[in-house]
Amino acid sequence: MITLARSVRFEEVDAAGIVFFARFFAYAHEAMEAFFADVDGGYAGLIMTRRVGLPAVKTAAEYASPLRYGESFRIETTATRVGGRSADLRYVFASGDRHVAVVTHTVVTSDLVAMRSCEMPDDVRRVLERHLVEVSEA
Amino acid sequence: MITLARSVRFEEVDAAGIVFFARFFAYAHEAMEAFFADVDGGYAGLIMTRRVGLPAVKTAAEYASPLRYGESFRIETTATRVGGRSADLRYVFASGDRHVAVVTHTVVTSDLVAMRSCEMPDDVRRVLERHLVEVSEA
Amino acid sequence: MITLARSVRFEEVDAAGIVFFARFFAYAHEAMEAFFADVDGGYAGLIMTRRVGLPAVKTAAEYASPLRYGESFRIETTATRVGGRSADLRYVFASGDRHVAVVTHTVVTSDLVAMRSCEMPDDVRRVLERHLVEVSEA
Amino acid sequence: MITLARSVRFEEVDAAGIVFFARFFAYAHEAMEAFFADVDGGYAGLIMTRRVGLPAVKTAAEYASPLRYGESFRIETTATRVGGRSADLRYVFASGDRHVAVVTHTVVTSDLVAMRSCEMPDDVRRVLERHLVEVSEA
Repeated sequence: MITLARSVRFEEVDAAGIVFFARFFAYAHEAMEAFFADVDGGYAGLIMTRRVGLPAVKTAAEYASPLRYGESFRIETTATRVGGRSADLRYVFASGDRHVAVVTHTVVTSDLVAMRSCEMPDDVRRVLERHLVEVSEA
Repeated sequence: MITLARSVRFEEVDAAGIVFFARFFAYAHEAMEAFFADVDGGYAGLIMTRRVGLPAVKTAAEYASPLRYGESFRIETTATRVGGRSADLRYVFASGDRHVAVVTHTVVTSDLVAMRSCEMPDDVRRVLERHLVEVSEA
Repeated sequence: MITLARSVRFEEVDAAGIVFFARFFAYAHEAMEAFFADVDGGYAGLIMTRRVGLPAVKTAAEYASPLRYGESFRIETTATRVGGRSADLRYVFASGDRHVAVVTHTVVTSDLVAMRSCEMPDDVRRVLERHLVEVSEA
Repeated sequence: MITLARSVRFEEVDAAGIVFFARFFAYAHEAMEAFFADVDGGYAGLIMTRRVGLPAVKTAAEYASPLRYGESFRIETTATRVGGRSADLRYVFASGDRHVAVVTHTVVTSDLVAMRSCEMPDDVRRVLERHLVEVSEA
């Protein structure tokens, strides 16, 4: 599990005064960049130099409690499945003791030049396997 | 079904050169604002004057084909379930003949002052029922 | 003058309940995409196919009156200077009779592959000259 | 001077592959939240609890060198003028030895309920005066 700590910023809320529901996926991506920090060249190097990306084929969120401007929260990232070319990530959002949201995310390792799936690089697989957990629910 | 036509804007892509996966939810919300355009005062009036919102409790996306800067696409919005205080919306994204993505979205009518669920206003229900479809898959 | 009509969307406000000040520049860029709609391939074609861009070297805004969620506004775009490789654009924001903001924007025609300035393409120059106005103030 | 260290995130670039020009103002605001971290309740407390904000009346940027995905940069924030109800902030962006951009920002202390200017709170003034510098150019 890799944990990212974060606060809600000024422009991340919507007209209802809570963090915009779409933004949880941007937060999750931020957590994913931290999750893969240890691959060769970091996650940015994977994208920009090695031209391998992890586009989403599927994602979902369940929202339990809203976040407001200024609130601190953390995102705990784990892998819940590691396949040949794809993997499932899981991001659990909490603020103190309060459960906030869960995001799930299926990514496929992809050649960004050809824009098609490719074998998962070994260092990407190693990070995923190091943080692989079993989840009881689907 | 309410259809929203849109083009990908300059800043809506990511470092992989395709529309950022989180942005499909912002696009879906834009389609939802168009979907509810006919409620009293429009969707913005619902939020700002009537102080009733439709926060997400659950959302999901399946991505079939990436969108790039400048591409035109459309979002077809329908309701797939209308409950007492909640409803399911479904947004189908396509660019010409190409299927792009599907977003699903469970919202709960909520009193934005008390920030708790409330009875669904009649005009909100009417819009949902007018565009209610049966979906074969879950 | 090219006019773009727009409404404030749900997620475009900040925790103070008004359109986030940085977003006026994104709105201005949206107006610029409309301004250059007539170049060969449209503005997106200029960027993606012809690989010529108009990165900002300078920009500024003056805010007269805040915008809130749901408000309609328009952006009137003109050129105020056309040089050899650069130009000044001016975006006047208004909502009904109410003056909202002015954004100014100096762009340089640039080869996006080499990422350095280039001669201004003729069709870009023609659009600028067609909408060139004199401004009394600096 | 308060320094904020930051990396460019995946979704912060545009279709030209560089950080979108509008985003520098969002970065500047992030630096401003760090700048005012020491006021009573932090900057978020100022907005959310004390209902005092610092809306922009004027802002500007000069761009010297583009930022790309994954690059690290820092923002050095100072005050360049402290008035009765308004102040000027200056944000200098650099990546290593490379100068990236300068943003200037005039803000007015405002009562967010009445949405009009108000006396500058003492703790806001103290932060500004502690980091006040003279600038040679305008």
